[in-house]
Amino acid sequence: MAPVSDSRPLQITALAGGVGGARFLRGLLAHLRSAEDPARRDARVTVVVNTADDVTLHGLRISPDLDSVMYTLGGGIDEARGWGRAQESYGVAGELAAHGEGPSWFTLGDKDIATHVIRTRMLAEGATLSEVTARLCERWQPGARLLPMTDDRVETHVDLADGPGGATRRVHFQEWWVRLHAAVPAVRIEAVGAAASRPAPGVLEALREADVVVLPPSNPVVSIGTVLQVPGIRDALVAAPAPVVGVSPVVAGAPVRGMADACLSAIGVPTTAAAVAGLYDDFLDGWLIAEEDEPPRRPGLVVRRRPLLMSSPRATADLAGAALDLALELDRKEPAA
Amino acid sequence: MAPVSDSRPLQITALAGGVGGARFLRGLLAHLRSAEDPARRDARVTVVVNTADDVTLHGLRISPDLDSVMYTLGGGIDEARGWGRAQESYGVAGELAAHGEGPSWFTLGDKDIATHVIRTRMLAEGATLSEVTARLCERWQPGARLLPMTDDRVETHVDLADGPGGATRRVHFQEWWVRLHAAVPAVRIEAVGAAASRPAPGVLEALREADVVVLPPSNPVVSIGTVLQVPGIRDALVAAPAPVVGVSPVVAGAPVRGMADACLSAIGVPTTAAAVAGLYDDFLDGWLIAEEDEPPRRPGLVVRRRPLLMSSPRATADLAGAALDLALELDRKEPAA
Repeated sequence: MAPVSDSRPLQITALAGGVGGARFLRGLLAHLRSAEDPARRDARVTVVVNTADDVTLHGLRISPDLDSVMYTLGGGIDEARGWGRAQESYGVAGELAAHGEGPSWFTLGDKDIATHVIRTRMLAEGATLSEVTARLCERWQPGARLLPMTDDRVETHVDLADGPGGATRRVHFQEWWVRLHAAVPAVRIEAVGAAASRPAPGVLEALREADVVVLPPSNPVVSIGTVLQVPGIRDALVAAPAPVVGVSPVVAGAPVRGMADACLSAIGVPTTAAAVAGLYDDFLDGWLIAEEDEPPRRPGLVVRRRPLLMSSPRATADLAGAALDLALELDRKEPAA
Repeated sequence: MAPVSDSRPLQITALAGGVGGARFLRGLLAHLRSAEDPARRDARVTVVVNTADDVTLHGLRISPDLDSVMYTLGGGIDEARGWGRAQESYGVAGELAAHGEGPSWFTLGDKDIATHVIRTRMLAEGATLSEVTARLCERWQPGARLLPMTDDRVETHVDLADGPGGATRRVHFQEWWVRLHAAVPAVRIEAVGAAASRPAPGVLEALREADVVVLPPSNPVVSIGTVLQVPGIRDALVAAPAPVVGVSPVVAGAPVRGMADACLSAIGVPTTAAAVAGLYDDFLDGWLIAEEDEPPRRPGLVVRRRPLLMSSPRATADLAGAALDLALELDRKEPAA
């Protein structure tokens, strides 16, 4: 662990899902690049990205979270939606629809499709998802190293209770999330393939060698939660010498963004900042919550209250800075412990 | 063979390549649909399309000739270029270029890419090219049954003599044709995979059961020529009870369209209407040539002079009508032979 006084660049490792994580990470990079302390200004950030949202549509392999992080950090994101490419066109999608090729509920813009075409081609030629991601990032220059959580195929599937006669039916996470807006209650969420998956190259090292580990306010079940299901990653977090600091994705009983409440319900966890911290109990050192929320009661966990809404680039950078401040504060304490 | 006097709809089978063949076939359908004779008006047309131009780019399987025929007959073609879709956009291609993903010389519009996405997905799922083509034609309703010449993979490769020290180098036909505009002389043209290919389902039947077989003015080497290399197709033409009538793709020593002269040179055949007829010697019954051209000298081959330029839809329909007239004239003669 780097004492804050020396100027060796910090090694920061984050876990992340899609839109919320991407936005937080952009704030983190903005905070770092404008920092006075050279250890922060030159910090190297590695992001371990959830891939359990990945889906194959029209034969194209799509990695929504990797793409959201890459587009957001690389300056290509559609700001209004928070996902997909800015200034998109829909020539391909219009034609697919004209052919009756579903699904129509997953929006695929032309620029976005180019990403999927490259990914699909490279995977078919035997490249790993890590290699594909590195190739795509050559263009996007996201300012952080993006690693898929695994190169193995993991896909979150959801059991819904709206089948005939109350039977459950299983759908891909994207169908539940995008098509059904998570409005149909999920009785089970399973990251299929997670148990047999291996962390992608560099993931365990990035956790082991980090000075700081950050959990953005990503979905604790289907984003951070699925990353933690890759065997070895949770253990690496528990064993990491660096402080692990997280930002609550829940404010006043509701997700800051997205539909995390529907996911928490499915695993029987209340939608509170304290309950989410409980999911990270075995490795969490610091936790940022909103003013109005109850802190988790766990000895040794340091909790700070901060404005959690990422309402502007400035607010987001400040939030990321606060997470980093807390981590470095914990880090300084450690030698005395 | 159907006597022309009865009103049973004619069965017409054509072989075809891309742009020129597609335009001729549109003229044929226009001629048929406006004919007074119900045998013509209700004629069923089957087109056996060259697939040796097919190429995989960006992992997408592209069938240029099938698509040119499908788009032209289905009303989706870009009229000015003669290939690709009308009102195209280039969102995907622009992104691929931004990633440095070549080649840049093969233009892929967004609407066109949708076709290739569907084809690639279906082939990856185990469908045959025939099944893919039938599926795509559900949308395009080309007014004719389109059959790939084969469901097996055949790709025309070209040896060019511009390698270092006069060595030859081998490129895909599309690279020679589209990128180099066939300006570099070819020393060899090979339809790789043709010898081991089998005619697609329905192809031999369509030749056997036809009342008329038509060869549009398609490229005699890399379009009609490659169709003829699929084992069984040439024999079926030789054995076909129907008259086989062709339209010369050469007028006054030059191709009507395209760069057939470069292909004919590569196989050592002069660019003349007579020499092209010689390539079809064993099965050709009738041949339409331009006013200024020398007829081939072969006993039994009936030659007519007609304006061959497909300069307007009307001129093209008249040319197709002339080919059909000649075929039916030969057909009427046959019982006396």
